[in-house]
Amino acid sequence: MEKIIITIGRQFGAGGRELGKKLAEKLKIPYYDKEIMAAIAEKSGLSKEYLTQNDEVATNSFLYSLVMGTRTLSGQKTVEEIKMDAQREVMKELAEKGSCIIIGRLADYTLREENIFRIFLSAEKEDRIERVCNRDHLSEVEALKKIHKMDKLRASYYSEYADAEWGRAGNYDLCINLSKISTEKAIDMIIMNVSDWRRETRI
Amino acid sequence: MEKIIITIGRQFGAGGRELGKKLAEKLKIPYYDKEIMAAIAEKSGLSKEYLTQNDEVATNSFLYSLVMGTRTLSGQKTVEEIKMDAQREVMKELAEKGSCIIIGRLADYTLREENIFRIFLSAEKEDRIERVCNRDHLSEVEALKKIHKMDKLRASYYSEYADAEWGRAGNYDLCINLSKISTEKAIDMIIMNVSDWRRETRI
Repeated sequence: MEKIIITIGRQFGAGGRELGKKLAEKLKIPYYDKEIMAAIAEKSGLSKEYLTQNDEVATNSFLYSLVMGTRTLSGQKTVEEIKMDAQREVMKELAEKGSCIIIGRLADYTLREENIFRIFLSAEKEDRIERVCNRDHLSEVEALKKIHKMDKLRASYYSEYADAEWGRAGNYDLCINLSKISTEKAIDMIIMNVSDWRRETRI
Repeated sequence: MEKIIITIGRQFGAGGRELGKKLAEKLKIPYYDKEIMAAIAEKSGLSKEYLTQNDEVATNSFLYSLVMGTRTLSGQKTVEEIKMDAQREVMKELAEKGSCIIIGRLADYTLREENIFRIFLSAEKEDRIERVCNRDHLSEVEALKKIHKMDKLRASYYSEYADAEWGRAGNYDLCINLSKISTEKAIDMIIMNVSDWRRETRI
């Protein structure tokens, strides 16, 4: 089988994890979301707790790192740099190894030199609120607050490292609104494109 | 046949017009891009020349309208307001009349209360430059300049009136990168979704 690397960016609460998992099952390829943490922890020597707390968060501003004590003034790597280097290396190793789906964490940017297919998933606010309410046991107000906070964090994380705008259609190959297009239909569409692209790259 | 209203936003030089026309032929429904001008001219009493010059441009800032002499200080409608009102009315009449495809011109925002399918089309810069070079007989440098200018105009036009960000994935139902997905495949994908959606709304 030809190698397929699919990267998935997603609004918080849009259903990216669910779609990613189902797509991976259908394509019979590995899926990495939070699953990538263990490998980053191993490579970096950082604790899984630290990585989980700082997952998809831009923490490399000078002020942040001084306050958090993550910046060394001696020219050594900061903890943030160690984390980002490890994340980059792990992703490149995964992509090297074979087909996979990687969710968030700048995968589209990190693997931009590879032949990747870049997805972005969105959904209408009311559907995202409903999903987050049910999943995280929150009230509607709390869910909306969390959605705004998480989208903001993801956007600033992306712009900080990728020097591009998170969620801007032109940065992706296919963006799907899961409020209008069902997860199953979206999966069919992705597979339809990926299999074509595999045929083309095989030539 | 159930009514289908498809709105298409597009980066300059991405191939939106070509895709829109082919899609309209396949669905056998009317297609409105610059074609909408004549109707707006008729409704507004404004000349087609004025409308063409100010097509998809936000000209309602106070300064712009003072300088251009389009602002009346007596509380009467400005020329810009007359144009926008006519554009809105024409679009609503078209949507009322039956299935159609409308390109740009805030159609997704104007018809947001209708059951519309919102597409956004992008392409990689090198492909857009090539298209604009060939179509408009420009050098690569001139083409790139025009792409930047037109995208900027469209973005500010959209944010001025729709109070939302042009080209942001979350504002559309399906965003397709025509450098990665062929026009033919994109058309198949759109029809696949629209026909499903038609089936659903019929129930």
